[in-house]
Amino acid sequence: MKIINLDQIAATPLLSEVQEAMVEAIRKNYGNPSSQHQLGDRAAVALARARDQVARVINAAAAKEVVFTSGGTESVNHALKGVAFANADKGKHIVTSNIEHNAVLRSLRALKMMDYRVTSVPVDEYGRVNPEDVAKAIREDTVLVSIMHSNNEIGTIQPIEEIARITRERKVVFHSDAIDSVGVVPVDVQKLGVDLLSFAANEFHGPSGVGGLYIRRGTRIWPLLDGGVQENNKRAGTENFIGIIGMGAAAELAWRDMDARVLHGRRLKEKLIQGLRKRIDAIFVNGHPELSLPNLVSVSIRYIEGEGVVLMLDEEGIAVSTRSACAAGALQASHVLLSIGRDFADAQGTLVITFGITTTEAEIDRFLDALERVVQTLRGMSPLYAKVKQAHG
Amino acid sequence: MKIINLDQIAATPLLSEVQEAMVEAIRKNYGNPSSQHQLGDRAAVALARARDQVARVINAAAAKEVVFTSGGTESVNHALKGVAFANADKGKHIVTSNIEHNAVLRSLRALKMMDYRVTSVPVDEYGRVNPEDVAKAIREDTVLVSIMHSNNEIGTIQPIEEIARITRERKVVFHSDAIDSVGVVPVDVQKLGVDLLSFAANEFHGPSGVGGLYIRRGTRIWPLLDGGVQENNKRAGTENFIGIIGMGAAAELAWRDMDARVLHGRRLKEKLIQGLRKRIDAIFVNGHPELSLPNLVSVSIRYIEGEGVVLMLDEEGIAVSTRSACAAGALQASHVLLSIGRDFADAQGTLVITFGITTTEAEIDRFLDALERVVQTLRGMSPLYAKVKQAHG
Repeated sequence: MKIINLDQIAATPLLSEVQEAMVEAIRKNYGNPSSQHQLGDRAAVALARARDQVARVINAAAAKEVVFTSGGTESVNHALKGVAFANADKGKHIVTSNIEHNAVLRSLRALKMMDYRVTSVPVDEYGRVNPEDVAKAIREDTVLVSIMHSNNEIGTIQPIEEIARITRERKVVFHSDAIDSVGVVPVDVQKLGVDLLSFAANEFHGPSGVGGLYIRRGTRIWPLLDGGVQENNKRAGTENFIGIIGMGAAAELAWRDMDARVLHGRRLKEKLIQGLRKRIDAIFVNGHPELSLPNLVSVSIRYIEGEGVVLMLDEEGIAVSTRSACAAGALQASHVLLSIGRDFADAQGTLVITFGITTTEAEIDRFLDALERVVQTLRGMSPLYAKVKQAHG
Repeated sequence: MKIINLDQIAATPLLSEVQEAMVEAIRKNYGNPSSQHQLGDRAAVALARARDQVARVINAAAAKEVVFTSGGTESVNHALKGVAFANADKGKHIVTSNIEHNAVLRSLRALKMMDYRVTSVPVDEYGRVNPEDVAKAIREDTVLVSIMHSNNEIGTIQPIEEIARITRERKVVFHSDAIDSVGVVPVDVQKLGVDLLSFAANEFHGPSGVGGLYIRRGTRIWPLLDGGVQENNKRAGTENFIGIIGMGAAAELAWRDMDARVLHGRRLKEKLIQGLRKRIDAIFVNGHPELSLPNLVSVSIRYIEGEGVVLMLDEEGIAVSTRSACAAGALQASHVLLSIGRDFADAQGTLVITFGITTTEAEIDRFLDALERVVQTLRGMSPLYAKVKQAHG
């Protein structure tokens, strides 16, 4: 049975062009790009090409502003800890938002244990940060602002340009976690004005375990990985060569097909939201109605448990998620949903449906059919739902 | 022209079984191992199998003591910084040796900038640490000892068991960088008695950019990468799935073929050293004559420059190195060679020749022929060599 993958934020499928690029790299048996002989030279040329491909998708001014990492989590850890450690003489205060990914939250938790202080700004009901709140939170000793480009649970896109204007004026380094945006929506680091930007290949049909950190020239930052002189002395360690080749190929495709991807996503998203509203009562669609990722729908379905829906849909060969895969093992209600005003019960009944360019309208229809049935079954067992139905007629 | 790869420490060739495992993983398009549906389950099963394969090659008591990383450098950074940060309340002193890899040296340099103190013990002319020196260096505030298992430039293997007896007695965490040993010589973490051990797949015919850190159960250590709950909460970030599958396959082969690999290496090494001694005068073979890696020969050739030899051999399709690829861009004399008593000129004339199970005796012969010619040419241009020849007849 072909599985309908509506949990693509966990891992987008590798496109065939990406697969072929990786398989070719495996078969060619490249050397170490740092070696000073032919085997190394060949690898260095391939690595440089991948860096150009990736730099173009975020419109970096220079390819060497792109540092390859082992994925979004390393990029975020590198940005946050690297800036915090390098600027400790200036201050130990960091500004962030209430709805960041665990990679940001837990990096900051580690920094707090090393006497750093963190101010976290709230978001509105759509999950948007108010740039004025960031401006107010910046102090004399603030060395870093970290606000995500888009949220991985509700899809809301933040006013990054406005925040960057503030951080530039206040001379504070600005990092944006754009892991769920790069390759999905246009991201232009020069237009955004960020100093650091994290991204990961597995969000745009590249392999997992490889990502990048954009570091604007002149940004004061320590490496996270100390050792050899790779990556322009910014990230030590022999490169994940095959993964990087895959990310390069995926970036090339994302750049080429960006408009088509956004349009395809928007069409599916609209269809999905309309279908949900038509077929299931007592739901909220979370996130901003326009300023939001085109490949993600977060829906809170009252009187059910999301975990139950995931299991029942899984039996029908449909993959969806209650939240990010990174947090799937953690049994707490989503801090993102609580931050936008959902209550505990709503958070429990929330599904995150993410799709991609390989997703078809027919798959969305099959999903809606299955979900309608599953919700009916689950609500049929819910005494609370029966009571509410009775009360409202 | 098929290149003769005698710089395998930079990147061992991927064996065909490893290639096939990786290609299959690419084609199968696995999901995210953390996802709670079929796509994720399949990936989780494959990941668990790879962890078992890797755990067996180092004889870990439990597979979950193996944490997958983005390579040797991350493993070392995780071990050193993770233990230093987690035990800062106990003390900020670390003991290491004079001949560690840059990943250790530079991680310690970063820690020194955060008020940690480091004592570095010397090595003898063969590059061996005296365990007594380690015992003497340990203080009340020592929280970590880090001594490499084998040296990446001269191949000398350290008395790790003896050092572990000391660290256990003194209740200090012991990390060993075994990046050039695991998969090359038998490494048994239980027999060695280490608390932490770093290794990397690209030293045993697996892909680059993937490695592991053995963390003995109960060891007090912080993650280096904070975020999701992957890797038993010890290393956040979506896994480099394809790389890990490749490392698992490579570990399986290393475990199965260990004896044959060691024998093959020893035979080639003996042949190589005899050939060098017979054909070229005024050389030193560096490292311990017995307690040493079977796949590495370091030779200092007087009156020549190693860089010149590398370039000239490269034109003949033979890859060798003057030192580790990680340091190839750094134009300083090797700290390892200076530590074992070689002078600056010797260090400049040093070649590191590393080979593997795909290397043949015929390739060693071709290398010796080529090297003899190249050394003759280079020394023919050296006024110093002419003078010495004249003086000694």
